[in-house]
Amino acid sequence: MEWKQQLRGYTDLMNQYLDGLFVNEKAPNKTVVEAMKYSLFAGGKRLRPVLMMAAYELFGKDLPEVLPYAAAIEMIHTYSLIHDDLPAMDNDDFRRGKLTNHKVFGEGIAILAGDGLLNYAYEVMLRDALSKADSKRYIQATYEVATASGINGMIGGQTVDLESENKTISADLLEYIHLNKTAAIITASLKAGAIIGGAQEADCKRMEAIGNSLGLAFQIQDDILDIVGDQAKLGKKIGSDEEKHKSTYPSLYGLEASYNKVRELTEAICNNLAFYGEGGLFLKVLSSYLMERES
Amino acid sequence: MEWKQQLRGYTDLMNQYLDGLFVNEKAPNKTVVEAMKYSLFAGGKRLRPVLMMAAYELFGKDLPEVLPYAAAIEMIHTYSLIHDDLPAMDNDDFRRGKLTNHKVFGEGIAILAGDGLLNYAYEVMLRDALSKADSKRYIQATYEVATASGINGMIGGQTVDLESENKTISADLLEYIHLNKTAAIITASLKAGAIIGGAQEADCKRMEAIGNSLGLAFQIQDDILDIVGDQAKLGKKIGSDEEKHKSTYPSLYGLEASYNKVRELTEAICNNLAFYGEGGLFLKVLSSYLMERES
Repeated sequence: MEWKQQLRGYTDLMNQYLDGLFVNEKAPNKTVVEAMKYSLFAGGKRLRPVLMMAAYELFGKDLPEVLPYAAAIEMIHTYSLIHDDLPAMDNDDFRRGKLTNHKVFGEGIAILAGDGLLNYAYEVMLRDALSKADSKRYIQATYEVATASGINGMIGGQTVDLESENKTISADLLEYIHLNKTAAIITASLKAGAIIGGAQEADCKRMEAIGNSLGLAFQIQDDILDIVGDQAKLGKKIGSDEEKHKSTYPSLYGLEASYNKVRELTEAICNNLAFYGEGGLFLKVLSSYLMERES
Repeated sequence: MEWKQQLRGYTDLMNQYLDGLFVNEKAPNKTVVEAMKYSLFAGGKRLRPVLMMAAYELFGKDLPEVLPYAAAIEMIHTYSLIHDDLPAMDNDDFRRGKLTNHKVFGEGIAILAGDGLLNYAYEVMLRDALSKADSKRYIQATYEVATASGINGMIGGQTVDLESENKTISADLLEYIHLNKTAAIITASLKAGAIIGGAQEADCKRMEAIGNSLGLAFQIQDDILDIVGDQAKLGKKIGSDEEKHKSTYPSLYGLEASYNKVRELTEAICNNLAFYGEGGLFLKVLSSYLMERES
């Protein structure tokens, strides 16, 4: 399967680049660096960087130029998981079959490791943007990432998610959580890749539509797996949403409607990608694959 | 006293600008915004923004252009205090005479409020940089702020500080903590202001020297006040360093040597500022004032 080779190519490139970002381990700050690396290399699928790279290649021709931004979005995603797993938030001991950051390094270092990853993401993007003769589209991409990660994006979604534990919430509020907590940085990945590749406004709008559908479908699929998934494959225990009395798409609409919604969103993604013909094939196959995943 | 009017002018401008950054309070994310504002408007002295504005005015003529960056450094400073106060870190219930963020909003929201302030700082800087025809020096300033705030700056210092509780540490390590946890973003304030104002390389080097001396002196003075200060004036209880068996300049060298060190550093600051003649007067008086402060 050629697309799996392409996926492997993207993830290998990303892992290599991420590895090169940490070289300073004898310094007095080595503990926080070690904690950051622990979570950054804990078996993440590199989905967001892959989306950014694939979106870039719809428009641009020099893939390495997108790597600092792809690395940054992965660091931001990872920091959000570290902070989300803390006892004061979701209080999870395991993620991807490994102990969570605070279980290994303690809560204080885990908080700092999250802060460190978030801040380092900006350092990496800004350092790259500064090195360019014309930095405009790099700054535009960095700003896309920033707004998607902030209080009107991911952090906003995390806030409402945290406040919604043990409550039945409205469908509107659930959509706010999904669109902001999950879809926002998926959308930003696609948009930032497209912007760096030189995409025009209309393409960015299309990336936004694809990202929102993909993010929503991805989250619903996550919630489905929390009910019907296999713990061994997931690397974490299932049933945690129900245990926390969390409203999810399946809990509000039922499993059948959830499957249908995922299918419907996947079709919308494919329709939008059809615009790019052959070029859109990788993202199309990847989207379908994500919706059939078991972990 | 004219310099106090100037100081008041800077802080009023800053408070007004910060106020204008939060207008969205009916949105679902209102809790995290409220928590961010709680700490941002909890009576901070706005020292870092004031330093940035004063450094800007050594070189530039349009003070408002520095405000997004001055606001950002204050948000980064505030986020670091919120996270530092958490039970897993310093475990402080009061700051500036008010309950700390997590005592009011709970730990989960306090973590998110810190994350939100850090991320919003970048959003505000990037949005401004994007609006400029030539964004180079704004990106340079943003990058200064970013490196000073990260694992090779403030977060590095916080990490070593956290690891040093209940330990006697070497003088070198103590200097690492002070230079990174405290001095780095003070230096970045001066440098970023100078860069946006159009300063040249030699001036930036001078700002760096001033910032490091000022940060170190400021931290030693803080540690002195934790021993001899007045709780009512400080708005927090004294003796907390000793209680936590924290190595400080006074604990390693004694009070007398600490006073001398502060004096010596203040002289170095004044010597460097002498280069700017009349223009450097405000920063000179401010530095001396900070070293004689009681809170």
